[in-house]
This record gives sequence, structure tokens and C-alpha cells, in this order.
Amino acid sequence: MDAVRNHICHAFGDLEREAVYDAIFSRRDVRSHFRSDPIDDVVLARLLAAAHHAPSVGFMQPWDFIVIRDQKRREAVRDLFLAARAQELPHIAEERQALYRKLKLEGICESALNLCITCDRQRSENSPLGRWHNPQMDLFSTVCAVQNFWLAARAEGIGVGWVSILDAGSLKDLLGIPDHVVPVAYLCVGHVREFAVQPDLERNGWASRLPLRDLVMSERYAGTGEDALKAAASAITGKK
Amino acid sequence: MDAVRNHICHAFGDLEREAVYDAIFSRRDVRSHFRSDPIDDVVLARLLAAAHHAPSVGFMQPWDFIVIRDQKRREAVRDLFLAARAQELPHIAEERQALYRKLKLEGICESALNLCITCDRQRSENSPLGRWHNPQMDLFSTVCAVQNFWLAARAEGIGVGWVSILDAGSLKDLLGIPDHVVPVAYLCVGHVREFAVQPDLERNGWASRLPLRDLVMSERYAGTGEDALKAAASAITGKK
Repeated sequence: MDAVRNHICHAFGDLEREAVYDAIFSRRDVRSHFRSDPIDDVVLARLLAAAHHAPSVGFMQPWDFIVIRDQKRREAVRDLFLAARAQELPHIAEERQALYRKLKLEGICESALNLCITCDRQRSENSPLGRWHNPQMDLFSTVCAVQNFWLAARAEGIGVGWVSILDAGSLKDLLGIPDHVVPVAYLCVGHVREFAVQPDLERNGWASRLPLRDLVMSERYAGTGEDALKAAASAITGKK
Repeated sequence: MDAVRNHICHAFGDLEREAVYDAIFSRRDVRSHFRSDPIDDVVLARLLAAAHHAPSVGFMQPWDFIVIRDQKRREAVRDLFLAARAQELPHIAEERQALYRKLKLEGICESALNLCITCDRQRSENSPLGRWHNPQMDLFSTVCAVQNFWLAARAEGIGVGWVSILDAGSLKDLLGIPDHVVPVAYLCVGHVREFAVQPDLERNGWASRLPLRDLVMSERYAGTGEDALKAAASAITGKK
């Protein structure tokens, strides 16, 4: 974390580089393995500092972090989740509804705490650098903060689950979030008994990992080529 | 990257954990320090594998990766950037326009290659798990892929700059991107002479890093409390 070291340290050493990839490849969307023991405030502060060092459009830093510990409030969020889930179910293809019902999709009450990461859309009203053409960039910056938080948490042995099956309006009412602020991510955060080897949805047969080489395009959409790159991609992802 | 190790390796060791934080804290939005030497395909494949292991709603994996190397095409994208920049300038507060004009905001032609990361909004049409209430979740998943790519690149000593000052429609025309696909991020990617100690916009006085403690809220929006967490946050971020 030392500025001088960062300046000098160009590419990381092999061990450090592997650690970054380990965090990326072994990060999981945790639903089922939360323990209830608390997270040390110093550790949680490190995770929030990681989130706060995400890139942001025009250095806007549009995020805020609502820490939710109260069990009653969490139960109210869980009720919102259950209602939203019942609303989503009919939109899932019929042959998959049985599987959908079986999936555990949240850990709101079991985790050590919940965290709502929000985006304040008015934070840099007079200097919308980089947002005139793409006004969603502030939301995207906030998502980068979520991903930083998630990867740092993995390195700390802390699991994170992103609950996206929620009605944003109801959540805003419950947490007193004003109109100009968007709740981008509602996260369950806590120590875990284990990190699963595969994503839950992959293990349960909901979907398979797509072959990386099929996602690489050359020069334009669906452009063929990049054979050497695709071969290298297959060699790497075949090992995992 | 070994599955068994990931399963057992709960929290990382101190050195590995610090490496993850180093990547997060020393990642930069690179504009000015690109070298022109090529990126090894094996390294680029690792970066793409990192992106491909981002979380995605319903394990949808909505991303594709368009690799752009051709100089003529890059010059055409640069022209789009220059036109977009001229359009954005009048929307910047008058007293900041001189600074805006001085800022270098892209490295489209100088970097080793460009990468457009797109989101295919139709990839899982019959199983919109987690997207019924928040249809933007597939875009957010794609942003998580961008951030994975960016952090892995930092560990490899490779710089990334996100060009958001672009008209999406013009870019789609240029790259032949169909209607149902969104170009989420246009990235300049390449080896760099250095990673700056501070973000460019901070060094140039565009904006300052906000105090982390001011962004922490308790139980509800703007809720006071979490004093111990805030003190820990100040102790950490004060050092950086």
C-alpha cells in the first residue's frame, strides 16, 4: 500500500500476481455458507477502503455505504426479497421453475451484516466529466466499487452475496434513500464455512461456463481471427 | 488457481492479501504513459480469463470481447472521441473548461491494443434469474468483468484506460455491434512506462479523494453511528 512501492513496482512478482488471480478465480457469490460471527471493524474498514479506491468517472466517487446490522431491518429486507422472488418466478421458463424454487438466493439474515452500496447521481452536478454521452457511467463506477469490495473480501476469507431480486423502490423506502440516490447493490457479508469450488448456479445445473474462446472477437462484432489468443485462452481456462 | 487450494485456502496469507490490496490501491485509469510494445497473447488471455470469471446475474455471462488492433480503426474511434469531447465541453462548468481541455482523456492510438467489452442483453432470454426487478443487472455484471480485467492487468504491469467520452451509437456503427448488444466499456490496454502515484484527476486538481468516513452510514441513508468503523477507516485511508 506504500505509494513509493506502487510507483516502482511495475508488474507484480509471480506470487503476488497469482494471489490477485486467486482472488478473482475463487471469488464466489455466497448464499449458503455464512457463519454468524462478527466482522472486525478494522477488516470491514479495509474492505470499504478497497471499494472507495475503485475507478470513478470524472473522479466522482458517487458511492455511499449503508451498514445494516439490525435483525429487524434485515428481516424486513428478507420479506422484500421473498415478495420479489414470488413476482419473478412466473417469468422463469416453466421447465426451470422447480430448480429456481430450490436455489438458495440470499443470506440476508444469516450473514454477519448487510451492506447497501448506493450511487449519488448528483454528487458532481457541475462537472459531469465523461457522463454527458453515457449518463450511466456513475452507476458503472459504483459497480466497480462493489467488485473491489468483493475481491478484497475474498482475500480476507469473507464471503459476499449480491441480492438482486429486490424491488428498488421498496428498498429505498425501507432504508430512507432519497430520490437522487440509487441502491446499486445489496450485499450479504460475512465469514463463511467454505468457498465453493464452483459457482452454485453452475453446480446446480442452471447454466454452464461458456468457452472463453467463443467470446473473443477480432476488430468488429463477431469478427473472426485472433487464433493465437483463442488458443491461449483455451489452454488457460481448460485447466480450471 | 488450483481448485483444491481455493477450497482449503480460506483467508489468504498476509503476503497474498497485501498483493490483492496493492492491485486495488495502485490501479490507475491510464491515459499518458502507454508504451507501444505488444502484449503477449498468453498474458492477454489471462486478463480475459479474469474478466470471464466475474460474477454475473443468473450466471448469464453476458460479455463479449472485441480486440481492436488495426490502426485505421483506432483512428476512427479517436475521431469519435474528439467529436464527443467537443460536445461535452460546453456542459462542463465554465471555470473548469480550461482544465478540461488540458486533461489527456484517452490513449486510443498509443496503447498496444483497444478492447471493447460488450453486453449481450439477449443471452439468457428464457431464464432472467435476478433481472426481472433490475433489468440493468446484466450491464452491471459486465462492469464487474471490466474491473476484474483492470485489476489483473495491474498485477501484470499492464495499464488500462476506460474511454467513456464516446457516442455509443457511432461506436456501434463503427464496430458493427447489433442492436441487442451494448458496448459497456471501450478500453485502451498496454504496457506502461509507469503507474502514477495518484489518479490524474486528483493530481491535476479536478477533484479530491473524499474522506471515507463521510461515506459510511448506519442502518439507513444518512444514519449516524458506526463510530468504531469510521475511526478504523480514517486510520487506514489516512496512511494512503
